[in-house]
Amino acid sequence: MKPKVLIIMGSDSDSPIMQEAEKILKQFNIPYDITVASAHRSPERVVQLVAGAEKKGVEVIIAGAGAAAHLAGVIAAHTILPVIGVPIDSSPLKGVDALFSTVQMPPGIPVAAMAIGKAGAKNAAILAAQILQFKNSSLSKTLKAYKKKMALEVLKKAKKIQKRY
Amino acid sequence: MKPKVLIIMGSDSDSPIMQEAEKILKQFNIPYDITVASAHRSPERVVQLVAGAEKKGVEVIIAGAGAAAHLAGVIAAHTILPVIGVPIDSSPLKGVDALFSTVQMPPGIPVAAMAIGKAGAKNAAILAAQILQFKNSSLSKTLKAYKKKMALEVLKKAKKIQKRY
Amino acid sequence: MKPKVLIIMGSDSDSPIMQEAEKILKQFNIPYDITVASAHRSPERVVQLVAGAEKKGVEVIIAGAGAAAHLAGVIAAHTILPVIGVPIDSSPLKGVDALFSTVQMPPGIPVAAMAIGKAGAKNAAILAAQILQFKNSSLSKTLKAYKKKMALEVLKKAKKIQKRY
Amino acid sequence: MKPKVLIIMGSDSDSPIMQEAEKILKQFNIPYDITVASAHRSPERVVQLVAGAEKKGVEVIIAGAGAAAHLAGVIAAHTILPVIGVPIDSSPLKGVDALFSTVQMPPGIPVAAMAIGKAGAKNAAILAAQILQFKNSSLSKTLKAYKKKMALEVLKKAKKIQKRY
Amino acid sequence: MKPKVLIIMGSDSDSPIMQEAEKILKQFNIPYDITVASAHRSPERVVQLVAGAEKKGVEVIIAGAGAAAHLAGVIAAHTILPVIGVPIDSSPLKGVDALFSTVQMPPGIPVAAMAIGKAGAKNAAILAAQILQFKNSSLSKTLKAYKKKMALEVLKKAKKIQKRY
Amino acid sequence: MKPKVLIIMGSDSDSPIMQEAEKILKQFNIPYDITVASAHRSPERVVQLVAGAEKKGVEVIIAGAGAAAHLAGVIAAHTILPVIGVPIDSSPLKGVDALFSTVQMPPGIPVAAMAIGKAGAKNAAILAAQILQFKNSSLSKTLKAYKKKMALEVLKKAKKIQKRY
Amino acid sequence: MKPKVLIIMGSDSDSPIMQEAEKILKQFNIPYDITVASAHRSPERVVQLVAGAEKKGVEVIIAGAGAAAHLAGVIAAHTILPVIGVPIDSSPLKGVDALFSTVQMPPGIPVAAMAIGKAGAKNAAILAAQILQFKNSSLSKTLKAYKKKMALEVLKKAKKIQKRY
Amino acid sequence: MKPKVLIIMGSDSDSPIMQEAEKILKQFNIPYDITVASAHRSPERVVQLVAGAEKKGVEVIIAGAGAAAHLAGVIAAHTILPVIGVPIDSSPLKGVDALFSTVQMPPGIPVAAMAIGKAGAKNAAILAAQILQFKNSSLSKTLKAYKKKMALEVLKKAKKIQKRY
Repeated sequence: MKPKVLIIMGSDSDSPIMQEAEKILKQFNIPYDITVASAHRSPERVVQLVAGAEKKGVEVIIAGAGAAAHLAGVIAAHTILPVIGVPIDSSPLKGVDALFSTVQMPPGIPVAAMAIGKAGAKNAAILAAQILQFKNSSLSKTLKAYKKKMALEVLKKAKKIQKRY
Repeated sequence: MKPKVLIIMGSDSDSPIMQEAEKILKQFNIPYDITVASAHRSPERVVQLVAGAEKKGVEVIIAGAGAAAHLAGVIAAHTILPVIGVPIDSSPLKGVDALFSTVQMPPGIPVAAMAIGKAGAKNAAILAAQILQFKNSSLSKTLKAYKKKMALEVLKKAKKIQKRY
Repeated sequence: MKPKVLIIMGSDSDSPIMQEAEKILKQFNIPYDITVASAHRSPERVVQLVAGAEKKGVEVIIAGAGAAAHLAGVIAAHTILPVIGVPIDSSPLKGVDALFSTVQMPPGIPVAAMAIGKAGAKNAAILAAQILQFKNSSLSKTLKAYKKKMALEVLKKAKKIQKRY
Repeated sequence: MKPKVLIIMGSDSDSPIMQEAEKILKQFNIPYDITVASAHRSPERVVQLVAGAEKKGVEVIIAGAGAAAHLAGVIAAHTILPVIGVPIDSSPLKGVDALFSTVQMPPGIPVAAMAIGKAGAKNAAILAAQILQFKNSSLSKTLKAYKKKMALEVLKKAKKIQKRY
Repeated sequence: MKPKVLIIMGSDSDSPIMQEAEKILKQFNIPYDITVASAHRSPERVVQLVAGAEKKGVEVIIAGAGAAAHLAGVIAAHTILPVIGVPIDSSPLKGVDALFSTVQMPPGIPVAAMAIGKAGAKNAAILAAQILQFKNSSLSKTLKAYKKKMALEVLKKAKKIQKRY
Repeated sequence: MKPKVLIIMGSDSDSPIMQEAEKILKQFNIPYDITVASAHRSPERVVQLVAGAEKKGVEVIIAGAGAAAHLAGVIAAHTILPVIGVPIDSSPLKGVDALFSTVQMPPGIPVAAMAIGKAGAKNAAILAAQILQFKNSSLSKTLKAYKKKMALEVLKKAKKIQKRY
Repeated sequence: MKPKVLIIMGSDSDSPIMQEAEKILKQFNIPYDITVASAHRSPERVVQLVAGAEKKGVEVIIAGAGAAAHLAGVIAAHTILPVIGVPIDSSPLKGVDALFSTVQMPPGIPVAAMAIGKAGAKNAAILAAQILQFKNSSLSKTLKAYKKKMALEVLKKAKKIQKRY
Repeated sequence: MKPKVLIIMGSDSDSPIMQEAEKILKQFNIPYDITVASAHRSPERVVQLVAGAEKKGVEVIIAGAGAAAHLAGVIAAHTILPVIGVPIDSSPLKGVDALFSTVQMPPGIPVAAMAIGKAGAKNAAILAAQILQFKNSSLSKTLKAYKKKMALEVLKKAKKIQKRY
């Protein structure tokens, strides 16, 4: 199947974080490509991946990077597709550098910033599904079911923990 | 025309910021509703606006709020539509409070966080257009033209400023 | 006995933190309910719990949450009972995100923010007792005794450590 | 009438901030005393005010201070009454120093921290009312009416601003 | 011998940090008292220790505390002796809360703030010696010798590490 | 009279801040020298001033600087006199850079850090007096009187502001 | 003359800051080009400018940008020339975003980060001169003279301000 | 061979970080000296090392230090050689103190600040090579080859990780 989402991570060491996005895309049955490209060490590759993605019909790009996380911004500079940025906690500054680098984009070039780390990677995939639902209405059902299931899981956990004293 | 985007701001004092989003939506010819609702002072109204928006066919919700900016997160809790959050610099903490409250969403409920303030409000509308293009291909052309124009404007400004010494 | 305090935590993983509040309530003989509800994953449940608590005669609500900790603020939006918020250190930002999300409430809807983590959870229960004492004067005695005991414990520890060189 | 609330500010320059608390207490018809006392420049006075307040039947103490805002913590060390702390933005650090000094209390001695500045001062008075309602049920009605009025004011502002494009 | 320095720590858990101060005082042959007292849990004890110290001829007070570290400020409020504050990293905020609480003292009541943690505890004792030298000129010699020894130790370490490639 | 205190500021633009220190020294009748020297632009001058100060019998050095405020640390490296550092808010980082540069001294070389800005400059002079009192007992009386006067001024301001509603 | 330095700013609004670099280059008689190019709005232009600069014999590139300041990093990705980055205070985060985005470069692609704002722009030009001196020894003389002059200016200012009381 | 680069670290405990710089210099065949000198504990040694380096023909100085990292600034005050600063994460503030102390240099005295920690140490050596290439054109080839190799390594890692689902 043609990929609908392209996940790019700035370094292979970001892989354990970005797997959270993969899990959701698989669970939601959304075809995706995942690869590594650095905005700084392989800038041409980033531009080529973005151009290639547009040709293949990719509709959302997810970029995960740490430190001076320029990856999502550089991708957004080269496309009109929605770009979702996942700041990664991989420097002594605990991800606040990656967050500021990802979210503080100048007017004209948006990046949809997610939370730092695993929560952000997972949410990037859910946001991708929320965007893709407009051309794939089965995704709307999947998302509604997922939302219900989350509420039920909270309830289940509540039942285990709750008590009265 | 039926609105495609709903803009909610937490307080009427956020209006000068959120007008940056309105300008882009008008320029891109995207129908929208804009209103005020507070996650804290009028929580039922927020829930009703979200439900009403889904019924009217709104496809993207933009939420702007300052301080403990819970608005975007509360909206995201009640919908599977993409929610874009604009943190607003309206407390002594200069928007870093609103940024953390908007972006650090838990796994399962994404909010697409933008930059603090006017840059973020403008980019929220552009991201909305990037999402809406999948059902309205004329928006893809608009976005491409806008991107070209931005590059040309940089060139024009460069020509005014650049010099050799 | 009817619960006087309701403790809600945003996730079952917050349980080891919120147990600090439980220990104090038990020690002070204050009946309480404790449960899990997420402002984002189960928003209706939060509203129902608050409404139910008011009916049961609960007089103070304690909410513990991490990251974009909206829980206490969302609860406060739905009640006129005092709401005490415990920011939890569960993201790479070490709880400063949860603190700002909890404390920076807009005018009109207070949340009584405590310290990040276990100290805050313990203090939430003591503050609850300080509030409940106005209808239960035995609590005033308990609080005074607890305060004296703390001073004595400091003295005891001082005696172990203090020396002259 | 006997004061139910004591407001102490660390410096007379904090007065424009703390007036937000006064406005609410007057509006809610809650008798209060307001004065100045510094935890550092007049520590004995702080202790005497707290002891005097307890004797007069004060039930809640509100403390506003900036910079190394020790005032609320020092008060809390000397009483079992609920102490509400308002961090004030009066140093180059923009109130983040006062916030950390106010909220990061050690286990055993809670301070209910409010938002930095005017929002926090206003909310301190509302929280005081939420606490006092347990011995004065007319305050419950006042608080409910106030909450409704806030929602209506949001609606009124929404009507002025909202539009469809 | 009569103590010249009084070390107070806010909690017995601060002992491993404050031992750095003890080591220097012993090495410099400066008599001291060390004890535990909490500004919040045992405020009277703090005031009594300060008054007692003045009577015994103590000339410098060192206070170590974490979180909302009010201890040094509270001591400084009750004495005209120089007070040295050591912020301790004992909360999720990694000592930045203790640093701001210690250093941001209002005009009129100085606290000499040291670095966070062990470096600060060691330096507190050295600063105490620098102050005490004015009445004990043998300390000037000790301090000069210590300074020389530090430079020599750097040289020694340099010799182990330095190389040319 | 021979100077007892040397005030060095890193730039003449720091003068309005450091005048707060001068006012106290004059009021306390403590002879002082004040001058400008930059740790970066005139490092030899700094070393010479320190050496000269020691010869003249100066007993305390106060250093005020902004941004990467190395001045106090560089002075401390060259003397065994107590060095008091005043971080100045003169960069976009609002003095937090100067604070960290001043306070985070490595083990062995203490700097007594004061609050950022005018409060810190004033307190630097008071701390100097607290240190100098050990060879000049009239200063002890001055300090006690000053402390009393501060408490009285609080009382005076309290009387203007305090009211009962 | 052929330019030796290329200054690129991300927006024409950065011009008042970057003029500090121009002043020094003119004063040091170093030929330069200055222009505008945005890493996000005109990414191709950035790449072309860098390639063109290398051809023209430019030896140092200075990049000034605010917010998510990716400009210096993107330039560094495309050249082996030394790249100096000037973070600019143009967002509510006061330049700390631009600083982290500029300085936290991943291993392999250095950017020489300067101070935020005007100080940084001026120093960027001085660092450029320090680099260029290796092929232009007259610059070494210029730099030495400049350094001396700075020390003299400090002395001159000191003479105006210094006094003894 | 005569050293072209001098690496100074503030403490021998910084050695594991600064070895990242050594690895690159060896790999690039750039002769260097490496040693330990503290701006605070051995200030004369720092000045002597700088003077000695200039005499030996050293062309770039790299300084690594943590906490109130004054080392790079102090070196820059004494030379017109380019000085590269590596902030090291060795205090509870996680290197943000060292970063601010290194980068926020006043106008006139630049320090080229690198990223905190190992990434910064590695990049310091690469920047040194970028500077040295102007007198040693073989370094230009080395740098180009290194840049290509980095891009290839990204590609290699990409091939291991990338997949399509």
